[in-house]
Amino acid sequence: MTEHDIQLLKSHFTFWDKLSPHQKDILIGGTTAVSYERGDSIHSADLDCVGVLLIKKGSVRVYILSEDGREITLYRLYDGDICILSASCVLQSITFDVHIDAVSDCEFLQTNSCAFSQIMQENIYVEAFAYKLASESFSDVMWAMQQVLFMSFDKRLALFLLEESANEQSDTIHMTHEQIARFVGSAREVVTRMLKYFSSEGYVELSRGNVHITNRAGLTSLTL
Amino acid sequence: MTEHDIQLLKSHFTFWDKLSPHQKDILIGGTTAVSYERGDSIHSADLDCVGVLLIKKGSVRVYILSEDGREITLYRLYDGDICILSASCVLQSITFDVHIDAVSDCEFLQTNSCAFSQIMQENIYVEAFAYKLASESFSDVMWAMQQVLFMSFDKRLALFLLEESANEQSDTIHMTHEQIARFVGSAREVVTRMLKYFSSEGYVELSRGNVHITNRAGLTSLTL
Repeated sequence: MTEHDIQLLKSHFTFWDKLSPHQKDILIGGTTAVSYERGDSIHSADLDCVGVLLIKKGSVRVYILSEDGREITLYRLYDGDICILSASCVLQSITFDVHIDAVSDCEFLQTNSCAFSQIMQENIYVEAFAYKLASESFSDVMWAMQQVLFMSFDKRLALFLLEESANEQSDTIHMTHEQIARFVGSAREVVTRMLKYFSSEGYVELSRGNVHITNRAGLTSLTL
Repeated sequence: MTEHDIQLLKSHFTFWDKLSPHQKDILIGGTTAVSYERGDSIHSADLDCVGVLLIKKGSVRVYILSEDGREITLYRLYDGDICILSASCVLQSITFDVHIDAVSDCEFLQTNSCAFSQIMQENIYVEAFAYKLASESFSDVMWAMQQVLFMSFDKRLALFLLEESANEQSDTIHMTHEQIARFVGSAREVVTRMLKYFSSEGYVELSRGNVHITNRAGLTSLTL
């Protein structure tokens, strides 16, 4: 880690000032700078838990997977966010596991579970920090759950396209129907059918691997 | 509160020994014994948050409600459990709200949000306790979510009937199809259709407001 990385740790791990000098050493010693490429699997239910991730750059997607391969995206994290569910093994009240993929090329500071677990057991401020972070994820998941369970699919897909367009600062979304289906927690066939309807209404134009928004007002009207 | 109630508080609020004498007074002063009748609404998104509930006796159901009235049960709590989402207003990282109903006649120790918030702000052990409890609910919700989103409905309904039968220690489940639909997060028509199928297979017998399990092994085979 560089001096800059250590400053990042200090500013994002808000319990830093409550750590003993020895605990600070454990935290720094247990943290390494790592990078992942777009599409990499960072964490899955089958692997050992990778630890706490501080995202320096890039974004990750946290999702669950059914036995028959359906995915539901729970939430995404971006620059400056901390991912705690990748260290669920150290949180005794978290009994489920999730998958985490890199949405773009990513750089993280990764604190291994062993180091984090040790300072968490010794220091109540670290424990409170970790469970509070988990509760933030809980709020994100509840939002996603309400979307998936309660919102009609045209509204959901329109919202996704508008959000993705805002994220990318472009009218064109470079994703296949399969990829979109994964993000919105649906089947490819359902996405394709709805995109064709959007296209027939003049809201979007479709080409191979791209959705181009041609009538933003029309698409927005579906979300109201 | 009786002396017995205070002992209950001490044994369930595991941060008790970390409280100052003044904080102990605030906690006791802010807690009252209350009772609710079966079917009562205890907490909803529209009401002020009622505070932390320690369940002395009875059970509650925590659920979300869509704009068009669909319910999804997130989890249930029983004797000795503590409900923290009824005090979500004091947890800044919890940004959603839930509904809570009494499933049976209930007795609680209810610590008002104001008192709980005060000791939580002053005492990091209380904060860690509260967020850890919230994370336990998170785990329950993830389980429910996977059931609703991923599990085929015959399996889900069979599991529900078997669990309910075990809870009530009876082969007969006294619930209408409408009530069952609410618990399993489905529509009444879907429940009715599946129960008729179960009946035609000889797994259950149906009568007004009752489902009687007649072939437990058969029903269990659906859940495997």
